[in-house]
Amino acid sequence: MTEFSNSIKNLRSSEIRRLMSLSADPTIISFTGGMPCNEIFPVDDIDEMWGNLARNVKQAAFQYGPTSGYPPLIESLKKYLSAKGLPVDNSQKILITTGAQQAINLLTKIFIDPGDRIITEYPSFIGALAAFKSYGAILKGIPLDGEGIIIEELEKALSDKWLKPKILYLTPYFHNPAGIIYSKKRKDELISLLSGKDVCLLEDDPYGELYFSENDRELTRTIKSTANEKFPVCYVGSFAKIFGPGMRLGWLLAPVEVVDKCELAKQSADACSSTFTQVLANEFLATNKLPPFTAKLRANCAKRAEIMLKALETYMPSKGISWTRPKGGFYIWVTMPENISATDVLNIAIKKGSAFVIGNAFDPEEKRNNCFRLAFSFTPEDKIESGIKIISDAIKSLL
Amino acid sequence: MTEFSNSIKNLRSSEIRRLMSLSADPTIISFTGGMPCNEIFPVDDIDEMWGNLARNVKQAAFQYGPTSGYPPLIESLKKYLSAKGLPVDNSQKILITTGAQQAINLLTKIFIDPGDRIITEYPSFIGALAAFKSYGAILKGIPLDGEGIIIEELEKALSDKWLKPKILYLTPYFHNPAGIIYSKKRKDELISLLSGKDVCLLEDDPYGELYFSENDRELTRTIKSTANEKFPVCYVGSFAKIFGPGMRLGWLLAPVEVVDKCELAKQSADACSSTFTQVLANEFLATNKLPPFTAKLRANCAKRAEIMLKALETYMPSKGISWTRPKGGFYIWVTMPENISATDVLNIAIKKGSAFVIGNAFDPEEKRNNCFRLAFSFTPEDKIESGIKIISDAIKSLL
Repeated sequence: MTEFSNSIKNLRSSEIRRLMSLSADPTIISFTGGMPCNEIFPVDDIDEMWGNLARNVKQAAFQYGPTSGYPPLIESLKKYLSAKGLPVDNSQKILITTGAQQAINLLTKIFIDPGDRIITEYPSFIGALAAFKSYGAILKGIPLDGEGIIIEELEKALSDKWLKPKILYLTPYFHNPAGIIYSKKRKDELISLLSGKDVCLLEDDPYGELYFSENDRELTRTIKSTANEKFPVCYVGSFAKIFGPGMRLGWLLAPVEVVDKCELAKQSADACSSTFTQVLANEFLATNKLPPFTAKLRANCAKRAEIMLKALETYMPSKGISWTRPKGGFYIWVTMPENISATDVLNIAIKKGSAFVIGNAFDPEEKRNNCFRLAFSFTPEDKIESGIKIISDAIKSLL
Repeated sequence: MTEFSNSIKNLRSSEIRRLMSLSADPTIISFTGGMPCNEIFPVDDIDEMWGNLARNVKQAAFQYGPTSGYPPLIESLKKYLSAKGLPVDNSQKILITTGAQQAINLLTKIFIDPGDRIITEYPSFIGALAAFKSYGAILKGIPLDGEGIIIEELEKALSDKWLKPKILYLTPYFHNPAGIIYSKKRKDELISLLSGKDVCLLEDDPYGELYFSENDRELTRTIKSTANEKFPVCYVGSFAKIFGPGMRLGWLLAPVEVVDKCELAKQSADACSSTFTQVLANEFLATNKLPPFTAKLRANCAKRAEIMLKALETYMPSKGISWTRPKGGFYIWVTMPENISATDVLNIAIKKGSAFVIGNAFDPEEKRNNCFRLAFSFTPEDKIESGIKIISDAIKSLL
């Protein structure tokens, strides 16, 4: 089978598999999994929702649905997005996708030929980087500071005649992995920079609902809501953090011409997303079960973030290490001195029983590794402190 | 946005959207939808299966799972496939996919660069053709007769030095759209032709369970079961016809090296298939609900096929028209004289209230259009006769 094996294209391995398996290992205090803890999911709602469905709807849940999505879910989603200020008028269209991951993949498929350029943040979401690379895109990462992408560096990259990026990929709200949220000022500067330009903004917003304080809610107002007329914005969202990742449902809200092409690409990708989980997600939205669930998840994550921040203050070396203080979402991003490798820290920490995801997994250029991501969302409250102590000790041993 | 629009790649439209919408139109007697009828789905089993699950399993159903699939489902599937004679030893691996469509898409992604060649049957499955084309493959269709692919023509294509196909795509059991099943003799000839060759056989088997007579069951024995040692076989199956298409679950059983690469491609396609529907599919297999369901579906389809065949005998013109007599599955393939266009027939038939899928949608080379597909699986028994009369009259008006 040698010749046969040779005909398989060379795809790169990724950190995701390792990341998932560490979350499942009971002997490790793992901060690797970017997901809600299992105990919080609305299990009991399923009995009620399924029980209340008419028989013909239950039957339809077993059947193929339109590639664009289950029509009642699209209607419920329109109301939900419209209440968030998003444009759901006739120039825009919704596509239900198999997780936000598929929306990113389909957009890449319709826009990118090998060698095309994409600008991302540094750091950036592993899943998006993997999708971009799988279509042969060349990636350029622009650093974030505490308020968002650094505008001067983005401006330079956008005006670079060789770069000419087709897509600008941003996760402005409770960033994965950086944990930050864009300031109002930074968003305004960004909108003014992008206005009239042809680069397509891919605004990825899986965590926007997860603000810890009501005061920060206004920060989650999307770029698409305010700047939709000024430049093309493809807005991607997910049910993973507002219902459950296992439903594998996300959405794309974008100009009609973009969504029509993505729908064609989806036909040959998986025909349609699960009607069964779409019926349940529609019930979840339509019967108003989302607000109490997100309220519970916000409180749960806020509490865990607080415990983790306190543990970092207590155990981390007093100099040379910094970390972000999240106002929402799942993540804290830790930066070490440049001569310390996150891989070395991880290898020591795993032996002592704790784990995280190393920085270069989030680097579009796969170079920088003096940073790492801590997810607090999945780890039981009473284990966070010991896990952080293990990691802090590992860093101290390398300083 | 002109420049922005121009940067979207030119994807081809397809018949699938039109096909789905015609199935949903209550004013049309539609033979377009290749799916079980809604009334047959195991709706009541859901209450029982969900009710019997432990709380921690229900919670896990909301969560991400491994990209390779929900481990208990992989185990149940191994038993199921092993009972069908398929090799599930250490040289082979299973990947759970978001429908069989995704398995075909991922295989194309890992094997095909633009310009690479794929051999298919003529006619062939629309979804596979769309996936192949979306990666820039050049397709060559080899005609089927009543016993399978025509060996002499396949042999010629395989030895063509320019063609050098990377994949041979076949649907040997209750073919979509041709409705035939390969004879034992034809499979043996095929196996002998492919032995020692490096072309990868993609054996697509969504309908194998749907034999109308127990006597024909032995015909559904897969090529992978008998010839796995002789050449590489990627075997694809689906829960669509043995549980429900709305679950969006299929699988790939293939050499480890192939599945590992497909798993990598799946990570950035949709991370994992729905854990929720995988948990249900596993219960469906593990609690032995599949045999009574497939028995019911077989009887249901056999009855509808019989009604349709009788109507064809009664209403079709006595000369110049031929059709296949299926021993299982969902489809009958009708061939008209070469000067009759299926599109013309369809346009007349739709006005009178019936519809089908035109032949050139199934032609890898998109030329031949004197054929069409009738799906009997979805149409109510009492409407089949009137629908066939409408289509027969439309043909008569063109002869």
